[in-house]
Amino acid sequence: MDRLLINKLVVVGVGLIGGSFALALRKAGVVKHIVGIGRSRENLQLACELGAIDETAADITGALQGADFVLIAVPVGETARVMSQIEPHLEAQTVLTDAGSTKQDVARSAYRHLSRHLARFVPGHPIAGAELSGVRAAQAELFQGKKIVLTPLPENDEGALERVRAVWQACGATLHEMSAPSHDAVFAAVSHLPHLLAYALVHYIAIQPNSRQLFDYAAGGFRDFTRIAGSSPEMWRDICLANRESLLSQLESYADELDNLREMLANGDAAGLKKLFNAAGEARQKWLDKEER
Amino acid sequence: MDRLLINKLVVVGVGLIGGSFALALRKAGVVKHIVGIGRSRENLQLACELGAIDETAADITGALQGADFVLIAVPVGETARVMSQIEPHLEAQTVLTDAGSTKQDVARSAYRHLSRHLARFVPGHPIAGAELSGVRAAQAELFQGKKIVLTPLPENDEGALERVRAVWQACGATLHEMSAPSHDAVFAAVSHLPHLLAYALVHYIAIQPNSRQLFDYAAGGFRDFTRIAGSSPEMWRDICLANRESLLSQLESYADELDNLREMLANGDAAGLKKLFNAAGEARQKWLDKEER
Repeated sequence: MDRLLINKLVVVGVGLIGGSFALALRKAGVVKHIVGIGRSRENLQLACELGAIDETAADITGALQGADFVLIAVPVGETARVMSQIEPHLEAQTVLTDAGSTKQDVARSAYRHLSRHLARFVPGHPIAGAELSGVRAAQAELFQGKKIVLTPLPENDEGALERVRAVWQACGATLHEMSAPSHDAVFAAVSHLPHLLAYALVHYIAIQPNSRQLFDYAAGGFRDFTRIAGSSPEMWRDICLANRESLLSQLESYADELDNLREMLANGDAAGLKKLFNAAGEARQKWLDKEER
Repeated sequence: MDRLLINKLVVVGVGLIGGSFALALRKAGVVKHIVGIGRSRENLQLACELGAIDETAADITGALQGADFVLIAVPVGETARVMSQIEPHLEAQTVLTDAGSTKQDVARSAYRHLSRHLARFVPGHPIAGAELSGVRAAQAELFQGKKIVLTPLPENDEGALERVRAVWQACGATLHEMSAPSHDAVFAAVSHLPHLLAYALVHYIAIQPNSRQLFDYAAGGFRDFTRIAGSSPEMWRDICLANRESLLSQLESYADELDNLREMLANGDAAGLKKLFNAAGEARQKWLDKEER
């Protein structure tokens, strides 16, 4: 058992991430009481039954009373609204973090809607997505060995930062810190761009006149390539819009890469194609080897 | 036990596909003797040890003498060379098929190099790829429940066609037939294009100045999306070049789809993005449901 870190935890948005966060902290024995807030009564009821939360909040004021830690785990498009709703009820000691997949827009929302709590709101992004969503998919082990990327604000006080670090570590996550712009550029490239490419491919196939025939011959490679196109459309719409600038820039550079490939193909450049495929295969293998260590 | 279909089988290229074909037919009890031909002495030796083949051919003439069935299972770039090598030694009764991933170029090679055997060469493409390659990865069950797409030539005689169908069925594959141009268009869309996109993404990430940082934050979605970029660079160079026209056309249409997405992003078109992501997710789910039936 770790030492008790949180007397009263409030989770806003008890889905896969919020529910797993609650379960992980409970399992680690570092939280006493967990209150869930969310849009769906049914989902909160389910979260209670699954043991993720102890109670659903009758009203926000009561929920935040005496809370020493708040996790905001809603689709990033909802973050600003949630912040403006909870802000009037936040007590001076309450530390907050979030789990949004984009960080510059979350910081912008915080400056607008949590201006009195900037010292104690530490933005974060746990790298533990899944195509599954909802509290039914939540599990205490979701963050074990996964990365949590914190993008602290200059206004954060050291105590709040330490608290947020300790809480995520109690979930089993490994700590990483970077600036919000770096975060958004990195994840635009390695996460948001591939999602967009996968959605685009499936949509492209689906709108062909012979789409039925095409899907009939799609096999295992297609299934894995498009797995991320099974992710929540609402969540990914929000992420794409929230990280629009970085994503547009990545999309443009990737289009240049495709142009380059198209030219090699058109010119029948066998050596160039083999070299590029080789380089890609080797880079990926190197990455896998490192991941497995 | 099925009835004996083949007295003497010759497999040219005893890798994943050729080796699995041999193992599957042997397991089905429909083949008496299997001879392997290949570029690598070591690989053929291994194929013997693994029980995929009975002997390695000392020379092509001897190997093809009395052969009643030949499978050509080499990278498609090698097909023409193999055909021109074996053609002088083919006996009148020998039936041939191949396992190339592209079919128009294979037909072109056949018209040029197997002109005296067009009645008995039935082109085929088993849909059972894997990132693994080489005979060590071969298994008798590789084709079980998988599709074999035959693209018969107008010159094929009915007896040879029936023979090829029966042999692939003995491997456990389900029979499909279409024209070579249809085949190449379909697989350009659902297989060759995704491979190109995956190679392009990994290469794009690998050539960034901060590629190490980028790979550090790549996660499970990236791994699955890029799994096909672990495929054999030589094989995929050949496939891309062999199916260049179809692939260029698919690449161009996909680039239009990306342009469309880019515009939605640039315009902040939340409804359009959600609609597209939804449509893609639903089309994919419908496909998965059908696959599982």
